[in-house]
Amino acid sequence: MRRNTNARRPEEALLADLRRRLREIADLDAVGAILSWDQATYMPKDGAEARSRQGALISRLSHERMTDIELGRLLDGLAGYAESLPGESDEARLIAVARRDFEKAIKVPVDLVERWSALCSAGYDVWKRARPNDDFAAVRPYLEKQLDLSREYAALFAPYRHIIDPLIDNLDEGLTWDVVQSLFSQLRRQLLPIVEHVCGQPPADDACLHAGFPEAAQVDFSLAVARAFGYDLDRGRLDETAHPFCTKFSAGDVRITTRVRSDDLGDALFSTLHEAGHALYELGVAPELAGTPLGRGTSMGVHESQSRLWENVVGRSLDLWRHFYPALRKSFPSALADVPVETFHRAINKVERSLIRTDSDELTYNLHIIVRCDLEVELLEGRLAVKDLPEAWRGRYRSDLGVSVPDDRNGCMQDVHWYSGAIGGAFQSYTIGNVLSAQFYAAALRAHPEIPQEIAAGEFGILRAWLGQNLYRQGRKFGADESVRRATGEGMTIEPYIAYLREKYGALYGAVPAA
Amino acid sequence: MRRNTNARRPEEALLADLRRRLREIADLDAVGAILSWDQATYMPKDGAEARSRQGALISRLSHERMTDIELGRLLDGLAGYAESLPGESDEARLIAVARRDFEKAIKVPVDLVERWSALCSAGYDVWKRARPNDDFAAVRPYLEKQLDLSREYAALFAPYRHIIDPLIDNLDEGLTWDVVQSLFSQLRRQLLPIVEHVCGQPPADDACLHAGFPEAAQVDFSLAVARAFGYDLDRGRLDETAHPFCTKFSAGDVRITTRVRSDDLGDALFSTLHEAGHALYELGVAPELAGTPLGRGTSMGVHESQSRLWENVVGRSLDLWRHFYPALRKSFPSALADVPVETFHRAINKVERSLIRTDSDELTYNLHIIVRCDLEVELLEGRLAVKDLPEAWRGRYRSDLGVSVPDDRNGCMQDVHWYSGAIGGAFQSYTIGNVLSAQFYAAALRAHPEIPQEIAAGEFGILRAWLGQNLYRQGRKFGADESVRRATGEGMTIEPYIAYLREKYGALYGAVPAA
Repeated sequence: MRRNTNARRPEEALLADLRRRLREIADLDAVGAILSWDQATYMPKDGAEARSRQGALISRLSHERMTDIELGRLLDGLAGYAESLPGESDEARLIAVARRDFEKAIKVPVDLVERWSALCSAGYDVWKRARPNDDFAAVRPYLEKQLDLSREYAALFAPYRHIIDPLIDNLDEGLTWDVVQSLFSQLRRQLLPIVEHVCGQPPADDACLHAGFPEAAQVDFSLAVARAFGYDLDRGRLDETAHPFCTKFSAGDVRITTRVRSDDLGDALFSTLHEAGHALYELGVAPELAGTPLGRGTSMGVHESQSRLWENVVGRSLDLWRHFYPALRKSFPSALADVPVETFHRAINKVERSLIRTDSDELTYNLHIIVRCDLEVELLEGRLAVKDLPEAWRGRYRSDLGVSVPDDRNGCMQDVHWYSGAIGGAFQSYTIGNVLSAQFYAAALRAHPEIPQEIAAGEFGILRAWLGQNLYRQGRKFGADESVRRATGEGMTIEPYIAYLREKYGALYGAVPAA
Repeated sequence: MRRNTNARRPEEALLADLRRRLREIADLDAVGAILSWDQATYMPKDGAEARSRQGALISRLSHERMTDIELGRLLDGLAGYAESLPGESDEARLIAVARRDFEKAIKVPVDLVERWSALCSAGYDVWKRARPNDDFAAVRPYLEKQLDLSREYAALFAPYRHIIDPLIDNLDEGLTWDVVQSLFSQLRRQLLPIVEHVCGQPPADDACLHAGFPEAAQVDFSLAVARAFGYDLDRGRLDETAHPFCTKFSAGDVRITTRVRSDDLGDALFSTLHEAGHALYELGVAPELAGTPLGRGTSMGVHESQSRLWENVVGRSLDLWRHFYPALRKSFPSALADVPVETFHRAINKVERSLIRTDSDELTYNLHIIVRCDLEVELLEGRLAVKDLPEAWRGRYRSDLGVSVPDDRNGCMQDVHWYSGAIGGAFQSYTIGNVLSAQFYAAALRAHPEIPQEIAAGEFGILRAWLGQNLYRQGRKFGADESVRRATGEGMTIEPYIAYLREKYGALYGAVPAA
């Protein structure tokens, strides 16, 4: 007897149709990611023009499907069904998240998407050429248009409590400037005395990281550590690029990239471990969520917590290097033969007040972020004009970091973000990631106090399983705040992070005085 | 004053719309090619399932656009305009070729495309596992379905003179079985005495190609020769794969692949030169044809002529190796130190009656092809049943090649073509390519008798410029026959090819008796 498909409940047919549409959107987004990955790794120079057109085509096809009125009708038709389901079921969450994504997408007119995409391409090109020449005048008009568009975008989501909120919501859904601001002020109060204490002492000697390191051996060693963390080459690979990133093409194909410099061992090593952290999160999402909007990490801040956890909390710990240092030394015998593990550990945790965010240490990194977020808000609120940005930047680096900025190339032109994307909404993620990395790790440690011994043995199964069970599996099923609460038992808090820093830098530089 | 776009002639607006649609189809096809390239080079194992779905999605989006009724209306609207244009203008040819492609595409129901695509995937997988086990019974049902679908496809284009004609037309547009058959019978008559003459003598010693050759140095050297041919790394790159191919993502990004075995220098070297020949053709198409159906090589046979010209006519010539052999020896000093260039040249032109097409030499290669095409026709006409294919294969190899086939793995299961694609329409291209490679080269030589001296100096500019001007630039503007006539002054003929073989093998094995 043939199966009578009409006998299925109508909701099941609607849900199947919804899943089919969402999978097509996910597949198109993955195709776009493949084009970008190739562009950033292997594409020959003259492929650029067509590639940008091909990428834009795929983005448009995805956006058309995300804002398809039939998708809206389908979600309307499923509203009653969703209410009948247990609130925490995959299906209920899927319908709820798909509706939220749809309602957000249809607020944005396609012409704004296109104008913005064109401006980002153009702005990136101009920035790339202007930065080496320290030519702020060249980027200024692009930055002004970027600011206009960022405001125009935010206005689509009025009313809001703060103009930066819709921009933050894009990457850190549910987060607001009020929360970020309160976090930053607590953090600054706690961080400054630690920075003061550490920077008052002679800086660590990191010469051992800047001997000559053959590049292929750096890639091999970095990948070996990432694989020990649990990164699986049946489901991923490591390639070289200019600005390392992690990208997902499907649940079975999550790739990482790194950058290798023969005179800087830390660059390839820690960027690989950082991206491997992102990859472990994506590879850990439950398979049944694949191809849906729930099938990825829940927010940029939480994502960054996983890259930071594996890069910093685990990757820069003395426990880890007690295990891996002999192998590292074997890979680079001439450079490291006379360097004790303690010296190496101090070197990879060197602290200094510096100009460049991406080169900065774990301790001062957040001060760089706070400057950027404050300036973004001033720009968006109209309290700061783009033309006055270089001067404002210098002022804040003087007061917050204690360094004088010699030029714009090492000042407000150092990061690509504002030139190739919105002003507002991205930078806070990095600091949230730092804070949450310690909070997740502390929770894992409460459940499994044996984790440090495991790490010292070069094993990571207990930590990875705890993170998988308590965070990775759920993907985007729950929002960031809910995900943090479920895993750690409380909302985001800076206490574990500050405790982690005080303990770590106390061990390296003597007990840190209380704030 | 603002430009009044309505003042343009309506035909220009229609033409612009046509170009926009065709460019979108070309971009989608390029995106599909990127997905395939990645799958064949870098994709991790577990990416396969999603990749096949993503590739199918892009194929469907492209097919929908190729058969869009609006495209048909647009072409109808442009019919009168096309007639008013000079027949050889880019625009007239564009409209004509786009119409032909459209009319062909709409004859094929989308369900047949989907059934066929699924069968090809499944057939390929089964073949890959069955071949090592010599398990013809496992592939037989797939081959039977493949035969049914090939006939079903051909029937869509009835009436035809021969059932294989619509299949041939897919890759070699305009070519028919009558022409192929007449070519094959002439060719066989001329080839057999040369094969007889050469195989009657002691075989060349090719041990020098099977010493140990470090793989990275093989890739470097092969690429260096390809670059000397004119392959430009700003517009391409070389990667490793299992079955080498050339692929185009845009006019500025045409990539080649190779396969490297440490015990077979010829494999990486000549597959690289072969694919570089394909790439030179694609890179030489006039930029103004890019993004249209005219922006690529005109047929598979003509394409194969360019890979064969650069691989065999140029790449296996003594002139070439008089220049490059010292560099090759420097790359592999231990393997080649005691090998004179003449020995190397004999080795790379070794002739023997053998079992495997892809390992066969320039002279017997076409005999392998003739067997396949004859068997395809017997299958399609119903004179041969799939179950009897292994026996028929053995019979033909005994009579045509003079070898006995020990098993199906080295017999009718050796090539992937029938298991992953149509039965009929592909194999003839290889022999047409061989024939045309000599015809094009002879025409170039008539125009520039100094080409051999140029090659002996390691320079290829004159030959490349002649091919560019007389063939590459036109892309698919003219059909294969017309392209051959324009470049060589006559239709396809075997004379230059036979003359080339007689001269080459005469020099190596003494004068060949007349046929």
